[in-house]
Amino acid sequence: MLEKICFPNDLKKLNIEELKTLCDDVRKEIISTTVKNGGHLASSLGAVEIIVALHYVFDTPKDKLIFDVGHQSYAHKIITGRKNEFLTLRQKDGISGFPNHRESEFDTFDAGHSSTSISSALGLARARDSKKEDYHVISVIGDGAIGGGMALEALNDAGNKPYSKFIVVLNDNEMSISKNVGALSRNFAKLRAAKGYISGKKRIKKALDRINHSGKLSSFVKHIRNSLRYLLIGDNIFNSMNITYLGPINGHSLTDLIEMFNRVKDSSNPVIIHAVTCKGRGHEKAEENPEKYHGVSPQSTSKPILKNYNKVFGETLVELSRFNDNICAVTAGMTYNTGLNDFSQKYPDRFYDTGIAEQHALAMAGGLAKGGMKPYVVIYSTFLQRGFDQIFHDICLQEVPVTICIDHAGLTGEDGATHQGIYDLGFLRSMPHLIVLQPRDTQEFSRMLKYSSLSDKAIAIRYPKGSAPVIKGEKDFDSLTWDYIKRGSNGTVVSFGNCIETALQVADEFEYSVVDARTLKPFDEKVLNEISSKPIIIIEDNACVGGLYEGVLNYYSTNKIKADVYGYSLKDEFVNVGSVEQQFMDNSIDAQSIINNLKNEIR
Amino acid sequence: MLEKICFPNDLKKLNIEELKTLCDDVRKEIISTTVKNGGHLASSLGAVEIIVALHYVFDTPKDKLIFDVGHQSYAHKIITGRKNEFLTLRQKDGISGFPNHRESEFDTFDAGHSSTSISSALGLARARDSKKEDYHVISVIGDGAIGGGMALEALNDAGNKPYSKFIVVLNDNEMSISKNVGALSRNFAKLRAAKGYISGKKRIKKALDRINHSGKLSSFVKHIRNSLRYLLIGDNIFNSMNITYLGPINGHSLTDLIEMFNRVKDSSNPVIIHAVTCKGRGHEKAEENPEKYHGVSPQSTSKPILKNYNKVFGETLVELSRFNDNICAVTAGMTYNTGLNDFSQKYPDRFYDTGIAEQHALAMAGGLAKGGMKPYVVIYSTFLQRGFDQIFHDICLQEVPVTICIDHAGLTGEDGATHQGIYDLGFLRSMPHLIVLQPRDTQEFSRMLKYSSLSDKAIAIRYPKGSAPVIKGEKDFDSLTWDYIKRGSNGTVVSFGNCIETALQVADEFEYSVVDARTLKPFDEKVLNEISSKPIIIIEDNACVGGLYEGVLNYYSTNKIKADVYGYSLKDEFVNVGSVEQQFMDNSIDAQSIINNLKNEIR
Repeated sequence: MLEKICFPNDLKKLNIEELKTLCDDVRKEIISTTVKNGGHLASSLGAVEIIVALHYVFDTPKDKLIFDVGHQSYAHKIITGRKNEFLTLRQKDGISGFPNHRESEFDTFDAGHSSTSISSALGLARARDSKKEDYHVISVIGDGAIGGGMALEALNDAGNKPYSKFIVVLNDNEMSISKNVGALSRNFAKLRAAKGYISGKKRIKKALDRINHSGKLSSFVKHIRNSLRYLLIGDNIFNSMNITYLGPINGHSLTDLIEMFNRVKDSSNPVIIHAVTCKGRGHEKAEENPEKYHGVSPQSTSKPILKNYNKVFGETLVELSRFNDNICAVTAGMTYNTGLNDFSQKYPDRFYDTGIAEQHALAMAGGLAKGGMKPYVVIYSTFLQRGFDQIFHDICLQEVPVTICIDHAGLTGEDGATHQGIYDLGFLRSMPHLIVLQPRDTQEFSRMLKYSSLSDKAIAIRYPKGSAPVIKGEKDFDSLTWDYIKRGSNGTVVSFGNCIETALQVADEFEYSVVDARTLKPFDEKVLNEISSKPIIIIEDNACVGGLYEGVLNYYSTNKIKADVYGYSLKDEFVNVGSVEQQFMDNSIDAQSIINNLKNEIR
Repeated sequence: MLEKICFPNDLKKLNIEELKTLCDDVRKEIISTTVKNGGHLASSLGAVEIIVALHYVFDTPKDKLIFDVGHQSYAHKIITGRKNEFLTLRQKDGISGFPNHRESEFDTFDAGHSSTSISSALGLARARDSKKEDYHVISVIGDGAIGGGMALEALNDAGNKPYSKFIVVLNDNEMSISKNVGALSRNFAKLRAAKGYISGKKRIKKALDRINHSGKLSSFVKHIRNSLRYLLIGDNIFNSMNITYLGPINGHSLTDLIEMFNRVKDSSNPVIIHAVTCKGRGHEKAEENPEKYHGVSPQSTSKPILKNYNKVFGETLVELSRFNDNICAVTAGMTYNTGLNDFSQKYPDRFYDTGIAEQHALAMAGGLAKGGMKPYVVIYSTFLQRGFDQIFHDICLQEVPVTICIDHAGLTGEDGATHQGIYDLGFLRSMPHLIVLQPRDTQEFSRMLKYSSLSDKAIAIRYPKGSAPVIKGEKDFDSLTWDYIKRGSNGTVVSFGNCIETALQVADEFEYSVVDARTLKPFDEKVLNEISSKPIIIIEDNACVGGLYEGVLNYYSTNKIKADVYGYSLKDEFVNVGSVEQQFMDNSIDAQSIINNLKNEIR
């Protein structure tokens, strides 16, 4: 059926059976491309019927469809004019794995971070009303994302006044990335457990009849009638927020979805439709293990030999915990992806999954530390941006020994602009008393984790996605010093983390030393002084503001040391989709680009 | 009565009448000191009885008292060994206006930002249980702060499992700083309106009898009995979150507060006690106008002549809006303090107060802009740290013309470490395509606001607390250029904002030019090239990482221009309580310190 469909208008000619076939076709397309290119498989499969039904009922792009996180948007991409380009998913110059407004007018907002869609939708609805325009604003949000503080703030605000044509589809698959947690998700479970789905024309109509003309459930009906159901759903959070709750419905039943969407079009109050779906729907393995299949990597012929940083994180933490009862781990909804599966099973009493709630995770960890525990909070760099204020206010200022483990630091490849870990370093370096580390390989990483377990300071440890080969230096990490990886006579390349390999190639070309600036705060001033008489090359996969390059310039300038410094940081641009290698090249910080550039500079 | 009290233990000997007298005495003390030194008058007055009752019932500092924001903690300071020092409130080397763990073991956490206390408390309770220790954890949070996303995340997590000895006191004064907004606060109003307070031993006991032995309201009782009350309070958000709700009670009745606190001590479930108070209680003017009296300035003999930036912001926005229907304003719970009072009255349909919800405010503004409006979001610099991710993800990445007005940028004086606006610049400069401006006086500020109203770009405008005298340069701001304030022959001082006055003094001493780097991103490269042949002095009241100094060093280094740059930024330390002038001196960036330092450096 997919061959007949280019744009949403083409959908409207199909009957329900044809729509179902279309859904099957779209699923096949998603699976085949994702298996090849990597991508967010499980959540995208779960949202196919919701997306098809929305495009069938509403008039996009005039009506605005807003995806939260955007993991789930592959079906949307395929049926909004990007069927052929879908093959280039997550590839250089190909289409993004997330909604992207530069790519299509159907992608209202770019979205790679969680819990934003209701805020965006509310702004859009308010603009629409101010400008006396007429369109629907529909956001699709997962049951994990809706527990994020920002989504709750938005619901609180949305419920303040009645907004019409403002629809939230809660895509409830019982997962954020990990299994969902929190009182809210227990609430959803209670709602799901309510006697079956609202299904079929009559029952949906009946459910909606309970909405009076003002669009709100009349309080009599709301509180008294239908008491069994009310026992189950009466005190749900949305009613507290003055948002009309409808559901649950079967999120894979096209008939029910279409019926429901058609019916709520004219509500004069914000409406939330609770659609229950199965993450990974249509792909056996992904249905069974949706966390593992949340994001899949491209097919590869060779097995990876190196252990990933996240695996080393989990293993080291388990090991350290054997001898230290105070160690505990905190994740914000990403147990598996951050390597904490084992830990969570071995030490369930010392494992805290806050759900998608980075702010709370960090501040809560501050409390754990204050109470005498030794917490390790692990968050991807890009999501840590949500918690900058908590690092300042609830960790550094409190002088508590929280270790902040920052996964996916630096360039991260195919997820594109929303997922690069390139802005945290500047912020972290500006925090008084915070120690900031980055290992060049997983063995150094283990040593840093051990070091932090013995420290009474707040420590941030950044590490990249994937893994790195072990590179021997002169002195294994055991104190806040830099390390010579190689000695050369003409100058020094200073770098860290993933860029050390590049540094070695550049150093080879010019007979330079290589120094691993593994302590990004405080700097190793002894080494900085030693190397200052000859040219210094800084390489970092970090934003051009606030990173190692600016820090080194600051050090020399402030200490009145004349030094000849050449910096290679990222361009002041958003990072496009592509492999990490391509992103290095795009930013001219790959070894060859640097060598070519330096040949003109250094004589 | 206050003369008898040094520490909480002294309280326990008093009878209820004596406690009442103590509260009166504490109020007098708060009023007299705050009028002299400035400070948070209204909220501190409202919380006196709650604080006295908590210290009377609980065993602090073994039991942990955690204040949200900490505005309200003056009474706590006075009765925990700081009665005499209270006279030095908010003065250099005096006591902080917020809880401060360096100051007293009774101050569990430092707190100047909102909505953190439940996260901190939950971490502490979890540490306590892990370590098999035994103490109560009590947080006191306002009805504004509890609507912040982070507090909602924490409630969601706290309700996940039952934690005993975990008590939240909701100090509901119907205000955040401005009048509260949002569905949640309507919920509170409904709860307040429920037939009177729970009051007196018998009624409190009866209310608590409805809690069964597991510490949770039995669902039968919860849903069926007491149906009138339930109609009003049944669907409150806390029950949705599995937190036992108790209240409302009169937050100024010592008897009821003490009774309630004693009764809930043994609950095995998290408990929230809804105490209704009057902000400004005991001070007539503050009761009448609590927003104005939220923070009061020290008594001053001379009237200020200069108009404050926040006033100019409000006036300019009103003026611009006369000719542009698309302009709208967004505040996160601070209408009055950000100068938006007039605007909110003249253009109520284009005014959005999200409550204390910076994340949502910024993303919602992104939605407004996407929908064709021209939003101005105004947030204090330090609170903007809550929204860094939204500036990245929901504004810059979306390429929408939001203007972010950053009040209280730079050093802010007496509020101390939690309130300095010194970390935003580094982050903002790392955002691709964002324009970052800072005016040196309020006239330039108006011009920048006008400029942004005509631009289709995202723009951040930083401006300090208070005001600044008008300083004429060569060219009023109308494009992204720097401005010469003064020409001199020996070198150039480059500075911005509040530091321009200092720059002029330094320049006088050495016969230097003064350049206003009013466009902090992008830099004016023409000027940077012009001035590079002679010494350059950079002065900024900004963190030493990511500011103008590092940016200028980066520019010259990257462009292979040899320049002699001397930087004066803040020390890498938290900023202590004191006046802005003192903070400049403490950081050696006042004119005299810089001149003395330079005399040794420049020849």
